[in-house]
This record gives sequence, structure tokens and C-alpha cells, in this order.
Amino acid sequence: MEAKPLQDLSKLCIHTITTRPWPLDDAIRHYAAAGVAGISVWRQVIEGLDPARAGRHIREAGMAVVSLVRGGFYPARQKTDRRKAIEENLRIINEAAALEAPHVVLVCGAVPGQPLEESRKQIREGIEATLAHAAEAGVKLAIEPLHPMYADSRSAVNTLAQATDMAEAIDSPLVGVAVDVYHLWWDPELEQQIRRCGRLGKILAFHICDWKTPTEDLLYDRGLMGEGCIPIRRIRGWVESAGFAGFNEVEIFSTSRWTGNQQQWLQEILRAYREAS
Amino acid sequence: MEAKPLQDLSKLCIHTITTRPWPLDDAIRHYAAAGVAGISVWRQVIEGLDPARAGRHIREAGMAVVSLVRGGFYPARQKTDRRKAIEENLRIINEAAALEAPHVVLVCGAVPGQPLEESRKQIREGIEATLAHAAEAGVKLAIEPLHPMYADSRSAVNTLAQATDMAEAIDSPLVGVAVDVYHLWWDPELEQQIRRCGRLGKILAFHICDWKTPTEDLLYDRGLMGEGCIPIRRIRGWVESAGFAGFNEVEIFSTSRWTGNQQQWLQEILRAYREAS
Repeated sequence: MEAKPLQDLSKLCIHTITTRPWPLDDAIRHYAAAGVAGISVWRQVIEGLDPARAGRHIREAGMAVVSLVRGGFYPARQKTDRRKAIEENLRIINEAAALEAPHVVLVCGAVPGQPLEESRKQIREGIEATLAHAAEAGVKLAIEPLHPMYADSRSAVNTLAQATDMAEAIDSPLVGVAVDVYHLWWDPELEQQIRRCGRLGKILAFHICDWKTPTEDLLYDRGLMGEGCIPIRRIRGWVESAGFAGFNEVEIFSTSRWTGNQQQWLQEILRAYREAS
Repeated sequence: MEAKPLQDLSKLCIHTITTRPWPLDDAIRHYAAAGVAGISVWRQVIEGLDPARAGRHIREAGMAVVSLVRGGFYPARQKTDRRKAIEENLRIINEAAALEAPHVVLVCGAVPGQPLEESRKQIREGIEATLAHAAEAGVKLAIEPLHPMYADSRSAVNTLAQATDMAEAIDSPLVGVAVDVYHLWWDPELEQQIRRCGRLGKILAFHICDWKTPTEDLLYDRGLMGEGCIPIRRIRGWVESAGFAGFNEVEIFSTSRWTGNQQQWLQEILRAYREAS
């Protein structure tokens, strides 16, 4: 069943990458003024900043820190590189704890030419190697399945079934899944896998944007909700029916949007959030 | 198990689109001189030509006509447009019969924003509406599952499981599946679905190329075998173990290759076919 239109902004979260030209201060000021309820912080936007202070700043502006984006990238051909990836993920968990972000979103990684099942094994090992630290820090880890067009170099986890399988196999209350409509909308099993993931209590996040026709770039041509073909409201209905009650997180990489006026862009996001999400 | 390296060119087929700048005559002359054993004919290359004559020309040059590419594109919002698509597919079947191509490859189609399951229903209806004609013409129809990045506008059939399901549901000896490594390599179920499809006797074609990192364009940046991350030989092993004994069809859309010297390009294809397929 399709979800009802969103009546207010109380569950609207925006990823800072969506307004990439804005430094964190600007994003906080403009989002808060617009009534946005939550922020997902991309690591690059807090580079050189004190994450604890950044987190306080966001909360003082009346917004929630929804997630830190992104950890992961565990697979590597050399063991030393896999070890480095794990150390980097421990630092990311520290940052999330300092921000008081409840979870880190994981873009799990892949190595071009390395068998995907080997990369998945390394991903699982990488996540498990950080679990004790995540528990201590009180930070969850959200495996984000990525669209199959990113299976070469960004993630060997490409369907919700695979992400849920992995979360289930790791079997820790700290490990769940991020459901992003851009990556998953095409999947004929999506409804049933959302139901299953919800039943397991593993849906930690819900990301929205749209798929444009034509899509001009594999990375930086995502659409605003309503600009494309994704049945966002229908998928939101499935996610909510599966028990998810968290934020609707707008996450849009778009070179053309980033070159325009960011305040106008923010206003368009608010409109599209009500009309097409 | 990985297949053995290819010892000769007796199963090498090239799609005319791979050397797009060449008119059919040039493709026939150069492919035959190089020892290529089969041609898959793209419709655009025979536009304005007599297909029966084109087919004879290919056979007289010592090559097999492996397939006609491509039919399909059944879904449309309006019934009149779906009717037109069926009529077009009837013409395509006639062309294939005149060429003496054993099958037509189907890029099934999708309508941006129309639910994928509705498009799949229209695809099935479209195929079924042409079956009697295909039987009379002695032409098979090969459903080609397309990569999920084409689910918006090119095909609502995006996994081998879906294509095999559809072929099984239509339940005609005329309808099978084309397995293309570019579209399917990422699928965690690929090995088992190839086995299943083979058991049903439904594998009609096997297409090869590679996935480059980075891929610069969603349509026209396919790689030559060995240039990317697809385990081609491993997948060929699965297909052969599943009973397929037909051609290995090279099908590469590449703007950068099309702008270069096509004779050199053909030589590179021959080398890559032996070394990396």
C-alpha cells in the first residue's frame, strides 16, 4: 500500500552531500531555518572540525544527527590494506560517537576483478572486527546495499536480500541495513525483502531521491523526488509497514544541482518532499 | 569451474554494432578475412537492404547468421502503441526469417514511471501475441535480461531469474533467453540461474564484453574482454556446463572504440577473445 503524503517536515533529514557547496555551518543554518528535522553528516563536511562540537551545533539548532556517512570499503587484495580499512572504520565509529550519531552508513566496498564472494567475505570480516568497538561507542552500523552498477568498485553487496543476509549472519543488534530507493527500486523482490528486513528489526535508515531518464552519469546525476521513475511513496509504504518509523533522508548527488543556487535547491527539496515522497 | 581458454575462432560471433562505423559489406569482408565464424546482425545495419540477400551474403562469406538484434520494446501506456510494437515485432520476425537468423534478441522495454510489474505483463502479452507468427517463420525469441541500470526505460526484465521465469511461464519451445555477462555478472544467483535455465533448455545465446572501472557512460562505454572486472571465463564455464554449445558473441558498445580504426579494433577483439574470454 502506498504511504500517505508527508504532512510536515518532522521526519525530513537531509544529507549534507545534497548541498555539497555548503560548509557545515551554512547547512545547519539554512536547514534549520527551513524546518528540516535532521541531518546526516558526510565525513568530508566535518574534515578538520571537532565532531563533538559539530554534533552539539546541530542539536542546538534544533535538529537531530541522523547518521554519519560513510564507513566501509573493507575489501582489499592485501591483508595490510584490509587492516588499514578496519582502523579507518574504528576512527569513523569514534567520530560518530562524538557527533552522537546513532549509526554509521556503510558503503561496503569492492575490488575490481576480485570475486564478489571474496569481497563479501572480507566485508563481513571487516564489520565483525569493529563490532566490539562499536558496542563500546554505542554506534550501530548500517549496511547499505548499492545498485548493481557499483558492484565493480564500490560494493559487493547489491541487493537488500544480500544486505539482510549479511546482517543476519553477523547476528549483532548493532548491525542493520540502510534502504535507499535509488539502489533498490528495480528489485523484483524488494517488497518481500523489506518485510523480512523489518521483521528482523534491521531497517536502520531510509534514503530517498529519484532515478532520472536519461541518467547522464553513474555517480552524480541523481534526481530530485518526482523527477524520475522510482515509486518512492510506494516503497516508503513498504518500509513503514515493516515497522520503520525513522527519518526520510534526502541524499542526492547531482553535479548540475551543486552548481546552482543552494538556497533555491533547498526550497525545491522541501517542495518535492511534500509532493513526491 | 572456469572454462578452458578458447583455442580457435570457430565459436566467435561478432555483433555488427561492435564495429558500428562499418556498413554490412565491410563488416562481412573484414570479419570473414579475420576468421570470425558468425555474425549477429543489428537491424540498423540492414536498413534499406534486402535481408534475404544480406543473409546469403553472410553465408557465402563462410559465416553463420547467429541472431537478429533486436526486437522487443513492448510496453507502452497506450494500447494502440502496444499494438504498434507488436506489429513492429512481426516485421522483425519476418526480417529474421529472411536473414535465416535462428532467433531475434529481445530488449523487452520499460516505460519510465510505469510499475515494472505492469511492464512485465505487457512484455509477456507482446511476446505471446507474436508466437504464432514466429512459429510459422521458424524464428525463436530470446529474452535478454538487461542490467538493472536500464530498468527505467529499456527493460523491466533485469535478472536471469526473471527472464527464465517469463520464458517458463510462456512455455513455448520458441522462447528462450540470451545470457549477457555485462548485464548479469553482478548477480549472486547467476550460477544457479544459469544451471536452471540450461536445464530447461532455454539458453539461446551468450554475449560477452567487459565492465570497465570507471564506466563513463551508461550505454556506450562497454569494455573489451579483459579490460574490466567480469569473470567472463568463469561465467562461460557455467553456461557450457549448463549445456550451451553455441557461439560466444562479442557485443561492445563503445563510443571511443567506434571513433578509432576499425581494423585495428577487430584485431584487438580477436586477441582478447583468445586471451580473456
